Amino acid sequence: MRALLFDGTAVKFRQYQADPVAGPDEALIKVEMAGVCQTDLEISQGYMSFKGVLGHEFVGTVLKCKEGKWVGKRVVGEINCVCGKCDMCQRGLSTHCRHRSVLGISNKDGVFADLVALPMRNLHEVPPNVSLEEAVFVEPLAAAVQVLRQVQIDARTKVTVLGDGRLGQLVAQVVHRHSKAMELIGRHGTKLAIAERLGIPTRLERELQPRRDQDVVIDCTGRVEGLERALTLVRPRGTVVLKTTVVGSKPMNLAGVVIDEITILGSRCGPFADALALLGQKQVDVACLVSRRTRLEAAEGLFAPGGAGWPSETLKMLLTFDR
Amino acid sequence: MRALLFDGTAVKFRQYQADPVAGPDEALIKVEMAGVCQTDLEISQGYMSFKGVLGHEFVGTVLKCKEGKWVGKRVVGEINCVCGKCDMCQRGLSTHCRHRSVLGISNKDGVFADLVALPMRNLHEVPPNVSLEEAVFVEPLAAAVQVLRQVQIDARTKVTVLGDGRLGQLVAQVVHRHSKAMELIGRHGTKLAIAERLGIPTRLERELQPRRDQDVVIDCTGRVEGLERALTLVRPRGTVVLKTTVVGSKPMNLAGVVIDEITILGSRCGPFADALALLGQKQVDVACLVSRRTRLEAAEGLFAPGGAGWPSETLKMLLTFDR
Repeated sequence: MRALLFDGTAVKFRQYQADPVAGPDEALIKVEMAGVCQTDLEISQGYMSFKGVLGHEFVGTVLKCKEGKWVGKRVVGEINCVCGKCDMCQRGLSTHCRHRSVLGISNKDGVFADLVALPMRNLHEVPPNVSLEEAVFVEPLAAAVQVLRQVQIDARTKVTVLGDGRLGQLVAQVVHRHSKAMELIGRHGTKLAIAERLGIPTRLERELQPRRDQDVVIDCTGRVEGLERALTLVRPRGTVVLKTTVVGSKPMNLAGVVIDEITILGSRCGPFADALALLGQKQVDVACLVSRRTRLEAAEGLFAPGGAGWPSETLKMLLTFDR
Repeated sequence: MRALLFDGTAVKFRQYQADPVAGPDEALIKVEMAGVCQTDLEISQGYMSFKGVLGHEFVGTVLKCKEGKWVGKRVVGEINCVCGKCDMCQRGLSTHCRHRSVLGISNKDGVFADLVALPMRNLHEVPPNVSLEEAVFVEPLAAAVQVLRQVQIDARTKVTVLGDGRLGQLVAQVVHRHSKAMELIGRHGTKLAIAERLGIPTRLERELQPRRDQDVVIDCTGRVEGLERALTLVRPRGTVVLKTTVVGSKPMNLAGVVIDEITILGSRCGPFADALALLGQKQVDVACLVSRRTRLEAAEGLFAPGGAGWPSETLKMLLTFDR
């Protein structure tokens, strides 16, 4: 099979004789389309010390599987491969399994490949009215939906979403369905315009003033300054949601967090079923976020050092599999 | 009157001809005893840019007041003087009043003085079975109780309290009443021994290993490393409570907060009524925390630069008012 892998130094396209072998509880899946995430880019810079096939956002077709009902089905898959036995799994927090491997991120080859093996329990069938290009957004859309599971947001909740990138756009769309007082903040007029066309109020970051009146601020900037900025916006007893991991670190004084009794919430993977339902009901528009489609065998250059393949206007890049 | 004040450079003992004037909604209170808090020490190093009479922990007797029922009563007082009209006050979050002054901390002369003026609405009567030396702990004890209002803690909740100082000891006593799986961590054998005598399990900080299995970690260290240490102890989806403000700052990578979906909660002032009830029912032992009593007029030296007046074994220092 063909695959895009990170060898610890650089991302390389390779062809193999052998296909991946699915374990007894796993399905072998033909990847139909994959999405590139900020985490993939960070891994290609050495984050998580991962080596292997990159990628965790995908839609595919089940080729082989012990449970016959899955064969031939179009599926997406949760990225955490879990033990089911540790204290976290027993608590129902299996996304935090102590012994998990994570698709394309930790100890598990990912989906930038013709084929991938994934536990059957991780699979979700894609409804017929959800296209490939929509389904490939399920993983990041689920991560956006996760915010709603962690914070109460209703029509009057004042929400600021920081960051007009891929995740910020998805979070903004999801939150905008609930809050009538939400604003998306970004650095790029072209990206903000996409949200504006969906009726989402936006503002350029450079026009932002400290205000301390927002109930919830969701940091999707992927930048180390994100939290600091969020703390200038959130009200006393408000909540800052950290939605993006950041590789760097920055000196920060957290006295204000104590004085204002701020809640800071880390937020990661979310419910696939909810994301599929939003797509099936056409409650979100992910098509407008696709910037570029690249064939797997041509994708090596996207990960070139310095990110030359990623102009700042780029939103989602998809990998396609001509066969 | 006599007072201990910070002039922006140093803490000085002064005698004045004039007494403070109580506003129409304020009571004039004779201070009977006061407690020295870490915040007072930090203010004397320039924190909060406060100038004026220091101190916010006290017990006193009402001398003058429009509402006659208070006159002659032994009282403690909440430290936030609030407007009652801003969005925070209207939400019931008056400790976060947008226009508040804070006793001895911000725009309001404090209690290291013979007399203090405080709004009547801030007063709580001290029950007869609570001594002066107990009552002076109401403010920090209320701050300890605040943790229970913010985090669910039951018998099986695994809790680590970091810091064996004044606040850590109070938090440990309060939490230990609810959790059977709590441990107090500190650097000083002598301070930990005080908690041990009350049946609280303790451990020296240098014996601590990363464990990531604690449901709740409460940082009372007052040190900039506290949060980082807490994050090595808390489990995925667990909660870190920041209980102490820290003047310094430290580069910190918060990727782990996102990956493990940690909640970080700032926690400040708490319910005086609950603290008075705990003292009245003898549910906590604050007498064992008193290290030293100093007369107001001799207390200048406690705030000498370098903190020479504070050996590391010191817990609570009280100020007395010989008249």
